[in-house]
Amino acid sequence: MTTQPSDQLETFPNPNPNRDYTIIMDIPEFTCLCPKTGQPDFATLKIEYTPDKLCIELKSLKLYMWTFRDRGAFHEAVTNEILDHLVNAIDPRWIKLTMKFNVRGGIYTDVVIEHKQ
Amino acid sequence: MTTQPSDQLETFPNPNPNRDYTIIMDIPEFTCLCPKTGQPDFATLKIEYTPDKLCIELKSLKLYMWTFRDRGAFHEAVTNEILDHLVNAIDPRWIKLTMKFNVRGGIYTDVVIEHKQ
Amino acid sequence: MTTQPSDQLETFPNPNPNRDYTIIMDIPEFTCLCPKTGQPDFATLKIEYTPDKLCIELKSLKLYMWTFRDRGAFHEAVTNEILDHLVNAIDPRWIKLTMKFNVRGGIYTDVVIEHKQ
Amino acid sequence: MTTQPSDQLETFPNPNPNRDYTIIMDIPEFTCLCPKTGQPDFATLKIEYTPDKLCIELKSLKLYMWTFRDRGAFHEAVTNEILDHLVNAIDPRWIKLTMKFNVRGGIYTDVVIEHKQ
Amino acid sequence: MTTQPSDQLETFPNPNPNRDYTIIMDIPEFTCLCPKTGQPDFATLKIEYTPDKLCIELKSLKLYMWTFRDRGAFHEAVTNEILDHLVNAIDPRWIKLTMKFNVRGGIYTDVVIEHKQ
Amino acid sequence: MTTQPSDQLETFPNPNPNRDYTIIMDIPEFTCLCPKTGQPDFATLKIEYTPDKLCIELKSLKLYMWTFRDRGAFHEAVTNEILDHLVNAIDPRWIKLTMKFNVRGGIYTDVVIEHKQ
Amino acid sequence: MTTQPSDQLETFPNPNPNRDYTIIMDIPEFTCLCPKTGQPDFATLKIEYTPDKLCIELKSLKLYMWTFRDRGAFHEAVTNEILDHLVNAIDPRWIKLTMKFNVRGGIYTDVVIEHKQ
Amino acid sequence: MTTQPSDQLETFPNPNPNRDYTIIMDIPEFTCLCPKTGQPDFATLKIEYTPDKLCIELKSLKLYMWTFRDRGAFHEAVTNEILDHLVNAIDPRWIKLTMKFNVRGGIYTDVVIEHKQ
Amino acid sequence: MTTQPSDQLETFPNPNPNRDYTIIMDIPEFTCLCPKTGQPDFATLKIEYTPDKLCIELKSLKLYMWTFRDRGAFHEAVTNEILDHLVNAIDPRWIKLTMKFNVRGGIYTDVVIEHKQ
Amino acid sequence: MTTQPSDQLETFPNPNPNRDYTIIMDIPEFTCLCPKTGQPDFATLKIEYTPDKLCIELKSLKLYMWTFRDRGAFHEAVTNEILDHLVNAIDPRWIKLTMKFNVRGGIYTDVVIEHKQ
Repeated sequence: MTTQPSDQLETFPNPNPNRDYTIIMDIPEFTCLCPKTGQPDFATLKIEYTPDKLCIELKSLKLYMWTFRDRGAFHEAVTNEILDHLVNAIDPRWIKLTMKFNVRGGIYTDVVIEHKQ
Repeated sequence: MTTQPSDQLETFPNPNPNRDYTIIMDIPEFTCLCPKTGQPDFATLKIEYTPDKLCIELKSLKLYMWTFRDRGAFHEAVTNEILDHLVNAIDPRWIKLTMKFNVRGGIYTDVVIEHKQ
Repeated sequence: MTTQPSDQLETFPNPNPNRDYTIIMDIPEFTCLCPKTGQPDFATLKIEYTPDKLCIELKSLKLYMWTFRDRGAFHEAVTNEILDHLVNAIDPRWIKLTMKFNVRGGIYTDVVIEHKQ
Repeated sequence: MTTQPSDQLETFPNPNPNRDYTIIMDIPEFTCLCPKTGQPDFATLKIEYTPDKLCIELKSLKLYMWTFRDRGAFHEAVTNEILDHLVNAIDPRWIKLTMKFNVRGGIYTDVVIEHKQ
Repeated sequence: MTTQPSDQLETFPNPNPNRDYTIIMDIPEFTCLCPKTGQPDFATLKIEYTPDKLCIELKSLKLYMWTFRDRGAFHEAVTNEILDHLVNAIDPRWIKLTMKFNVRGGIYTDVVIEHKQ
Repeated sequence: MTTQPSDQLETFPNPNPNRDYTIIMDIPEFTCLCPKTGQPDFATLKIEYTPDKLCIELKSLKLYMWTFRDRGAFHEAVTNEILDHLVNAIDPRWIKLTMKFNVRGGIYTDVVIEHKQ
Repeated sequence: MTTQPSDQLETFPNPNPNRDYTIIMDIPEFTCLCPKTGQPDFATLKIEYTPDKLCIELKSLKLYMWTFRDRGAFHEAVTNEILDHLVNAIDPRWIKLTMKFNVRGGIYTDVVIEHKQ
Repeated sequence: MTTQPSDQLETFPNPNPNRDYTIIMDIPEFTCLCPKTGQPDFATLKIEYTPDKLCIELKSLKLYMWTFRDRGAFHEAVTNEILDHLVNAIDPRWIKLTMKFNVRGGIYTDVVIEHKQ
Repeated sequence: MTTQPSDQLETFPNPNPNRDYTIIMDIPEFTCLCPKTGQPDFATLKIEYTPDKLCIELKSLKLYMWTFRDRGAFHEAVTNEILDHLVNAIDPRWIKLTMKFNVRGGIYTDVVIEHKQ
Repeated sequence: MTTQPSDQLETFPNPNPNRDYTIIMDIPEFTCLCPKTGQPDFATLKIEYTPDKLCIELKSLKLYMWTFRDRGAFHEAVTNEILDHLVNAIDPRWIKLTMKFNVRGGIYTDVVIEHKQ
């Protein structure tokens, strides 16, 4: 049985679920591989969310991001996949994910996804 | 039978058509020829869109942009033509195209077009 | 019979009159003469418009701008005159003209005119 | 009979009274005297207006500004007075006057007045 | 009988009470003493107001500010006190007072108060 | 019996509870320990609030911030805890707390909480 | 007998003539008249000097600058004249005078003079 | 017998007199009184020095600066006086003092003094 | 017989060969092809030179630059080649050529060559 | 036999070995692993060199950089190793290598090495 990347996303109870508040995480060191050519891709991520019952544990998020290091990933697909993993893990009241990929073939690509409970 | 530039725009299925999200592509290296004088023109493009069933494949977009290198193209016409090609290829929920042409005859020209499904 | 400056504004058919879109032209090199003193005046122009049936041809616009080089022109009058010439030539759905004149007598003057079909 | 400063404000017919448009004049070289101490005061002015039947003639505006060089003038009063002179001279559809006075006694003072027809 | 600081705030008649207009005063050189430790405190003030019948006289405002030089004053209290003095002196249609205190104990404090007639 | 950090938050009566006004405190020097690894964490805090009956005393706030120096504290929990302590101490009409933590494991985390009476 | 402008430059003994040190004075509010047209000119001055036996008194320098308000003065001549007055008044070990005149006829003029004992 | 301000400058032994190194202290909150008018003056100080046997103790330097709060002091004299006090207290290998005084009468004054052992 | 690109570089006599002076030309619109992949490359050029007997004619320089549009060219070789063409055409006293190529494969390359007579 | 990373550095003949000139390559997408913890490290490289007989081929340099993606590498060692590989491959007249590593444990590390033939 293969370990899925999303298995590495640990959570902890929201210390105050009675409040709506915002957690913002900037991750400038994301890298994966191009699924067509195997060449490295680089991106910066921004996660913004309002927790419901659970929060994302910081160290496991770091380890989760590392699991993409050796995986092939299309820009649009990987952004949707990461958002799905985050939603599955913590079911936030609101979440927004922004990925900015480095230039490839003279083209810069950003993907921005927003999700509500 | 001549190959049309739009034939080079490949697509792939939107990895998550259940969501509205935004893809932004910046292309700083566009060049074509002035249809009157044959002189080179240079522009930067920005494509912003919300995919429906299909997304634009990155490498084919790069190759598509290169097809203009040896073609004559008026500023206003080429912006409309590229938007039409993109709409024909992926029929997005929403798309906006911005082309900023370098100075010619002491005049800077931008053309901005927005389209909804 | 004298050739009028507006005779030099050539046009071409809007390549896509089914859409509302925006064309922006920045012209940093306008010069005319002060009608009182004969001294040179300098200005920058910005033309923003949504074409209807016609677009302004770039080279004729450049030549048109040159016709002011040896003419006397009051700031407010010349801005209105250029807007009238543009409206007469292409009857746009919407147009905005901004002229920023260099300092004269310690005073900087801008004139901004907007017109709708 | 004394010549009033406002007598120096010349006007000319609005070249296009059928349109609402905006004229903006920046005047960085205003100076008058403090009515209490006789000491020089310095300010920058910004005049923004939509002309009705008349426009302010640029050279007479410059001369008008010079008439304050040897006059005592409180900050709040002189801003109101200049606005009144402008309104009396051209009765604009809308006008806004901003005066920014240099520091005096460690205090910077701005006065901003807006007037509609 | 002690002279109160507010006795030093002189006024003059609003030169044009028929208009709503705005007067903005920036005062970068405010200093008072900490009432607990006797140590000097420094702040910058911004006064913004729409006068009704009266305006604040500039020189008396400067002298008024100097009266705090040797007084102990808590941040929140002194901002409220200055606003009260200004309101008592000129009863403005609207006034806003912003005080930005320099760092003390590693903490920067701003106090912002708005008042309407 | 252990002294709780919140015991160190002293207050003083709001000098003017009849008004709604805003107090803003920037604290660039917060440090605590990572509860997992014992490593130092650094953050900047911004407290913005409208006082009701009580204000936060500046020196006790400084001492309160120092109590975190040798405590383990998760990012989300410590932000909620500080907000709770502030609310318990002064029950403000409105308060907003922003904590910006330095990069850890290549990830920057901000937590923003707003609370109304 | 007419009072000369230089009569207004008061001095005081250099508090420490045993040292070479530098005094720098920035004067952004200089105005005089154009000797040809009578029109106002504006400039900013920078005085840098190493005092010998005497220093320039600040208030008299301000009054001295005001004496130019109603005098005609060519750019180059007035800079030389002010330098001469300063040298005559305090005979400094070294002095440098920089005058930056506002734009006139589309031309900005700076005049820079250095003098040694 | 009166306590002199310089009595408040405490020192401590240079922890490494075998090296030439530089200590830079910025003091943005200096205030004294104008000896002519009694009006407050404000300045920022920069002290740069290479210690020999002694260093300036920070808290006593702060208290020393406060002694000027109620003293009359000319710009040039007070800069020389502070330098003398510093030299007397620590006899540094090299020291440079820069005082930048706030605008008075439309004139900004800086005084810069350098001293070597 | 093929026309060589360097045949297009026209010259004109240096109007003042008795002086050493510098001419600087910035060319932001250079494009050629990668000799390995046929993909477009983009660069900006800066030419700085001190003419001897001849100067480079501007329009021919523009046409010369266009000859690279359809040629394959390695970064280092094309920079040396252009410098050689320029030296052959005008034999300048001194010349420096800087080419900054757009990112390819995640690598930005600049080539800088200096040549003296 | 294992393929060494340096085997991937291809070269081509310097197109003009008669000249001293400079090639500058910026590589913002370097990543390797920490040899102690296995965690990813990120850095930007700048290579500056004067070629002798050989130049570095761009695509092989990109592939060479990718070989570090799965290798453990200490900051100082990897910078020396890359320089050695470059020197072995092209024996340049002069070369300088600058590596700027992202923050780890709150510490940013740069390593700069220069080598001459």
